[in-house]
Amino acid sequence: MRRDHPVGVGLMGLGVVGTGVFRALTQRADLLAAQVGAPLVLKGILVRDASKDRAVEVHGASLTTSSEELLRDPSIQIIVEVMGAEEPAHAYIQRAINLGKHVVTANKEVMAKHGPELLALAESKGVCLGFEGSVGGGIPIIALARKDLVANRIGAIHAIINGTTNYILTQMAEQGWDLDYAVQKAQELGFAEPDPSYDVDGLDAAYKLATLSTLAFRSPVRVQDVYYEGIRRLRARDFKYAQELGYSIKLLAIGKIENGSLQVRVHPAMIPQDLLLAKVTGVFNAIQVDGDLVGRLLLYGRGAGAEPTTSAIMADVIDIARGIVEETGSLPSVRLETGRSLSSINALITRYYLRIDVADRPGVLAQIAKVLGDMDISIASVIQKETNSQAQTAEIVIMTHESREASVQKALKGLKELSVVKDIGNFLRVEDCATPKEGSR
Amino acid sequence: MRRDHPVGVGLMGLGVVGTGVFRALTQRADLLAAQVGAPLVLKGILVRDASKDRAVEVHGASLTTSSEELLRDPSIQIIVEVMGAEEPAHAYIQRAINLGKHVVTANKEVMAKHGPELLALAESKGVCLGFEGSVGGGIPIIALARKDLVANRIGAIHAIINGTTNYILTQMAEQGWDLDYAVQKAQELGFAEPDPSYDVDGLDAAYKLATLSTLAFRSPVRVQDVYYEGIRRLRARDFKYAQELGYSIKLLAIGKIENGSLQVRVHPAMIPQDLLLAKVTGVFNAIQVDGDLVGRLLLYGRGAGAEPTTSAIMADVIDIARGIVEETGSLPSVRLETGRSLSSINALITRYYLRIDVADRPGVLAQIAKVLGDMDISIASVIQKETNSQAQTAEIVIMTHESREASVQKALKGLKELSVVKDIGNFLRVEDCATPKEGSR
Repeated sequence: MRRDHPVGVGLMGLGVVGTGVFRALTQRADLLAAQVGAPLVLKGILVRDASKDRAVEVHGASLTTSSEELLRDPSIQIIVEVMGAEEPAHAYIQRAINLGKHVVTANKEVMAKHGPELLALAESKGVCLGFEGSVGGGIPIIALARKDLVANRIGAIHAIINGTTNYILTQMAEQGWDLDYAVQKAQELGFAEPDPSYDVDGLDAAYKLATLSTLAFRSPVRVQDVYYEGIRRLRARDFKYAQELGYSIKLLAIGKIENGSLQVRVHPAMIPQDLLLAKVTGVFNAIQVDGDLVGRLLLYGRGAGAEPTTSAIMADVIDIARGIVEETGSLPSVRLETGRSLSSINALITRYYLRIDVADRPGVLAQIAKVLGDMDISIASVIQKETNSQAQTAEIVIMTHESREASVQKALKGLKELSVVKDIGNFLRVEDCATPKEGSR
Repeated sequence: MRRDHPVGVGLMGLGVVGTGVFRALTQRADLLAAQVGAPLVLKGILVRDASKDRAVEVHGASLTTSSEELLRDPSIQIIVEVMGAEEPAHAYIQRAINLGKHVVTANKEVMAKHGPELLALAESKGVCLGFEGSVGGGIPIIALARKDLVANRIGAIHAIINGTTNYILTQMAEQGWDLDYAVQKAQELGFAEPDPSYDVDGLDAAYKLATLSTLAFRSPVRVQDVYYEGIRRLRARDFKYAQELGYSIKLLAIGKIENGSLQVRVHPAMIPQDLLLAKVTGVFNAIQVDGDLVGRLLLYGRGAGAEPTTSAIMADVIDIARGIVEETGSLPSVRLETGRSLSSINALITRYYLRIDVADRPGVLAQIAKVLGDMDISIASVIQKETNSQAQTAEIVIMTHESREASVQKALKGLKELSVVKDIGNFLRVEDCATPKEGSR
């Protein structure tokens, strides 16, 4: 295509992120044109209700409620999908690709459920599918996996990719707040939804991990492959004990190859305090990647918000638009290998932290140790905390040596049946986040 | 080009990094071919002495001592330059581009001195020039500035981009070592050269900052534009005092737009202890970038070493090779705007830390305060440290409010002339690393 011939963009969705993209396209048109080598022109916007009042004044671009009108507009070469939710976004993306349009999406749910198929479809149709905005907000983690580390074999990813929960955990650790109060504060500040389950229960992080793992390990991973747990079991005292033991507690998204199998899991974890990852606080995200050439990398930044997500979306749009102007390809197609075997959470071997409420009387520890010993779980350290003499209860905190998840789960059941055990306060997996060993690949 | 038709690579240099590239090309050929869509074949290697014993057994690829033989080989489409030093590397890169070859280089000196010209030459010849390996080792910071943040206006970069000095400063801070001992330890561990000046005096960081700033601010910056100072003035006590005041000391490379002018400077700086940047220890590098959409980003990783640098080089090689196979472009050409005005170090306005050895007698502080006051430098805090009653000297540590560099330099001269001042122990600029204000662009 001739230089100076404009590249047409169609926008699907005009919510918070859509408004950010609209503003970028209209308010920094000169900057974008300089980067692309031709003007980027917003040709049309798909909305649900064309008569609604909006945060921005839409002029120039026409509003439409018909997806077909937008998708079939011959002046549009790039579709930006920022509607969110699975359908109809997924159907529109498919349709756009089938019509030969390049697509840029920030839709983590669609990518986590249908990413491998959509990437294959885009390759077969010779168009680009950009999804930098679907994981990690403004952090260019998709580019890292898609381009920058392609000469590496990636052994592990340890990531904080949900800002809402990281804010909540930070406040629990630093202020001693309990979970409910921290969630309420997060809601007041707009960091958490009125119904916080999607973040708090780990599903948002699981979506992002599926997409990230697909690229990093070059193997299709879907959200249903990801084991996930949220942060609801955590109490303020867990943070206090973790700190005494030299750890921080983070909701980690982990993708890791061990003995040739891929683990993909999201759960709260105790990580060594001196790791940079442990120092990521508030709504910030960070993704730590271990590659066999590059060693350890960490990327840190804002994982959500209209402007950071717009930054990511526009990077993809500009990359694709340059390719159109220069009549070349741009975003490399993603070539996945045949699926790696996925290992079950039950096969996990790691150290565990157990917090148990017990009756404060002699012989309790012996009974607990026996249950653990019977399951081949060896105790590394045990501390009796906070005796409540009135209620005649005590709290016991145990760190185990490396144990198998399945055994720990069975032991927890066994412990609950002991009459001296009042309650299993919590259990947490300990992640040392060590660089993977050569042999683990 | 047809798929499966191999892409030919010519390697210039077979030192530490060259050996890393050689190993990657030969030992992970399958992985690379899968990414490229065709085999990457090493066709020839330029060396100074073809008969020398090598760390790797070179077979297949032919060794040559003739640059012309390599550059004119029609089976070679990509030249990888890892010779280091300005000449003849610069001449070879120019020649390669003129012959229509794509070039990937890890040469920070060539890029810092001739980057803008070489980028323009590459664009005019329609070839790619990759230089990810020239800054930040395995950290994909060039890709960030070149591609991932293109929709942003970047306001500031604060970077730790010399691992040798970061190791030295970390040891001085954590172990209380003095500079000479820390340098000696770094040499023993292979982190510092026998002559450490290149790292210790800040030139290595200045090279990298020139290249990084050229891309980030889209304006040609050459190493001669960069103000740089090394770490030789630092004493163990500076780290102690910094810590008491809530700061860490890092050798920072700073690129920053203020009032429309670009500052590019390398010097030791006091930064707030709670910044993630302050927690980057040992030989690791980290680059903090503030973009107007993305907010604050930080990238952390290994800034040197054969394998991390190979990771960066191979990312460029694969990107270019994919473009060759798919008959498309790949690395976007770099479009620089007309030069921004560069601001002199003398115009810098920041807070300063002064450590002054004085005679331990009455009225000293009044004399010092008068010199500072005459230069319009206002004192934020002053602490008298470590009186040495035998020598009748004392040490005064002053933190100033925001002051102008030119005034501080004049004041330091004035202070030296006071009979009560034995010595200016040190002065350090304080960088709060705040996100740039809107108005500063």
